[in-house]
Amino acid sequence: MSLTVNAARLKEDLQTLGGIGRSPGGGITRTSFSAADADARSWYAARCRDAGLSLRVDALGNMLADDGSDPSVPAVWSGSHIDTVPDGGAFDGAVGVVAALEAVRRLAEEGLALQRPLRAAVFADEEGNYSPLFGSSALARGYGRDRLASMVGRDGDRLIDAMSTAGWDVDSALDVAVHRDPVFAFVELHIEQGPKLEAMGTEIGVVTSIIGLGEAVVEFHGRADHAGTMPMTERHDPLRAAADLIAALASIAASTSDAAVVTCGRLETRPGGANVVPSLVRLTLDFRDPDAANVAALAVRLEQHANEAARTHGVGVTWLPDPVIPPMQLDERVRSTISRTAAELGRSMTAIPSGAGHDSQNIAQLAPAGMIFIPSRGGRSHCPEEDTDWPDVINGANVLLNTLAELATRPSAELITDQSD
Amino acid sequence: MSLTVNAARLKEDLQTLGGIGRSPGGGITRTSFSAADADARSWYAARCRDAGLSLRVDALGNMLADDGSDPSVPAVWSGSHIDTVPDGGAFDGAVGVVAALEAVRRLAEEGLALQRPLRAAVFADEEGNYSPLFGSSALARGYGRDRLASMVGRDGDRLIDAMSTAGWDVDSALDVAVHRDPVFAFVELHIEQGPKLEAMGTEIGVVTSIIGLGEAVVEFHGRADHAGTMPMTERHDPLRAAADLIAALASIAASTSDAAVVTCGRLETRPGGANVVPSLVRLTLDFRDPDAANVAALAVRLEQHANEAARTHGVGVTWLPDPVIPPMQLDERVRSTISRTAAELGRSMTAIPSGAGHDSQNIAQLAPAGMIFIPSRGGRSHCPEEDTDWPDVINGANVLLNTLAELATRPSAELITDQSD
Repeated sequence: MSLTVNAARLKEDLQTLGGIGRSPGGGITRTSFSAADADARSWYAARCRDAGLSLRVDALGNMLADDGSDPSVPAVWSGSHIDTVPDGGAFDGAVGVVAALEAVRRLAEEGLALQRPLRAAVFADEEGNYSPLFGSSALARGYGRDRLASMVGRDGDRLIDAMSTAGWDVDSALDVAVHRDPVFAFVELHIEQGPKLEAMGTEIGVVTSIIGLGEAVVEFHGRADHAGTMPMTERHDPLRAAADLIAALASIAASTSDAAVVTCGRLETRPGGANVVPSLVRLTLDFRDPDAANVAALAVRLEQHANEAARTHGVGVTWLPDPVIPPMQLDERVRSTISRTAAELGRSMTAIPSGAGHDSQNIAQLAPAGMIFIPSRGGRSHCPEEDTDWPDVINGANVLLNTLAELATRPSAELITDQSD
Repeated sequence: MSLTVNAARLKEDLQTLGGIGRSPGGGITRTSFSAADADARSWYAARCRDAGLSLRVDALGNMLADDGSDPSVPAVWSGSHIDTVPDGGAFDGAVGVVAALEAVRRLAEEGLALQRPLRAAVFADEEGNYSPLFGSSALARGYGRDRLASMVGRDGDRLIDAMSTAGWDVDSALDVAVHRDPVFAFVELHIEQGPKLEAMGTEIGVVTSIIGLGEAVVEFHGRADHAGTMPMTERHDPLRAAADLIAALASIAASTSDAAVVTCGRLETRPGGANVVPSLVRLTLDFRDPDAANVAALAVRLEQHANEAARTHGVGVTWLPDPVIPPMQLDERVRSTISRTAAELGRSMTAIPSGAGHDSQNIAQLAPAGMIFIPSRGGRSHCPEEDTDWPDVINGANVLLNTLAELATRPSAELITDQSD
């Protein structure tokens, strides 16, 4: 017998969350630890209270909702993130957050006898205002004190200041290490953010693997001079070096692999006067590949090119990499549970790799993990046009609900690859 | 008989002004209509009151200090600007402002019989947070209502909002047209901002001409997409087009003339997420040449290249030019008065063109105008390292004082090219 989500409640949750941080232009800016993010967290906490759930929040802003049962019992987790990129969409992260909460509510309403608790998670700063997959990376690998203290957001603000302003306990945050609560399995529902499912006319993607992700801040240090009086040939202009590097990104990606992508989404000039040769250009590189060796090769090639560009244009350069988030194969047993559930619900499905990074690839270091994708209209994401048809959201939420029910009620303490019944 | 400035008072003024808007790193950020700019204006107004001078402020923030005499009498003006670039220095503009105020005070103290009043001027937003030579351009050519309403600062704020916040009457500002008070002559003291006087070991530069200045905002419009899921070949990335344009700036300048300079000092990416392909890149180009035809040619070539770069990379482009500030020959009669005065004071001097734009080139449209340069250490300017030796400041202020005294006491209503006595 299959369970179904309360579609009206799920839709209301998604719409309410989608109204928080929405700009007049239709985009949603709910970046981590912003006022809009705080509003979304308050809303989430209230929805948990409405459902009689208890909510734990760790010192880095990760939230975990459940029935208040013993945290030492290995639990089934599901969740995603509540933050967005600047001017992003209403589905990325939000679908997985509200569907996980709905699953916890529905299992409670059904009164099923669970073998282990089901917990709904919200991971902090998935979109990397301060660092990509920030909250789940802390759970998987921990952060040192220096690393946390060095994190700077896209507006130049320090993480520890932003957390302090948002009311988080910075001292505790500096001591957060790997999460110790045992996790039985993790499943995340997410939009695909690419065009494949829509093009295939397929309802459900069962994610096989998640791409590896590197990020680095590159600073070119030149010399501020008057734009009128300093001859072109005597300048030390860091923007020339930055332009050289940006122009090379596509060829560096293409020479690494067919699947490699390199993006500069953020670049700033200092001091920023129209009539001043910049003294500093700071840019962020995002580079990805399904193969760990290629992610490492991209880092080497990008740093080499940055060094060459700096030499060519007579400026200094600093290469400040984040630790690479490695590519991750998702768990075969969780994937087969998802596939079987989707089949039982009569949904069309396909195996699909993820080109986007997800909290699942961190939680996969702690427990067997799987992901469910639903189609994205036109493959668009990280923009106001991001959209998924409502029936696709419901289909995904129902596959998630029944997968989680299976994982939470399964008598064995071990995940089994397949079941004959 | 030559007059001398009160060196202690002048130094105190320059040091006090240099402390307003100074950052811990030593640079001064006193951009137009900022809180620091307001503090500097308050300080200037108080110094005028201390000296028994009356101060008029027009609706765009230009300030004029004098003895309160009839504004319809053609007057000798001297002055410069009180605003700075972000993280600029303590001499650019400030030297000319405090030296002009000192000259008005000294002539009053000497009780000389003046043929016409001497006025000390401070021009608003010379550094072009909103538009280059903003205040003096209004005096020379006026602004239409639409042009003022369209001006946006380097932080994205609208001029009319900033003025309103700073307490300026926006409605009056929208109606400011060409200044109607008659000006007999104008002289501005300024640091060279280039390396020539220092290299020659010369104390005084008598400026022959001021470079022509064009500025344009270029916007490349692309499509925001997810940095992981959108293949490199399917992107519409405006930063690639911007990099293409920036890489071409030096060759566009070199192919126009030996003296041409083109600078991009400000570039921003939107939405600015590290994991989002930018939807918009907005950059500002500053381009200059001593020849008006070359300034026009630079504008054409830069716009053409921006269009080509946009086509190459599959993005849109908008070219938003400011009106060109034309190159200006300074008045032969004022120049010879400066030269004669410097010779009488025993100063070494040379004729020198200005590669920087100055309010003088606007006031030169209203009256005979001249400029006095003093050396800049290492040619550095628009940076915290900007510096001029104190004896050079005193020399310049004394040449200015005696030049202004000559212009204000000369019996003839006409400027004369040379005097035999």
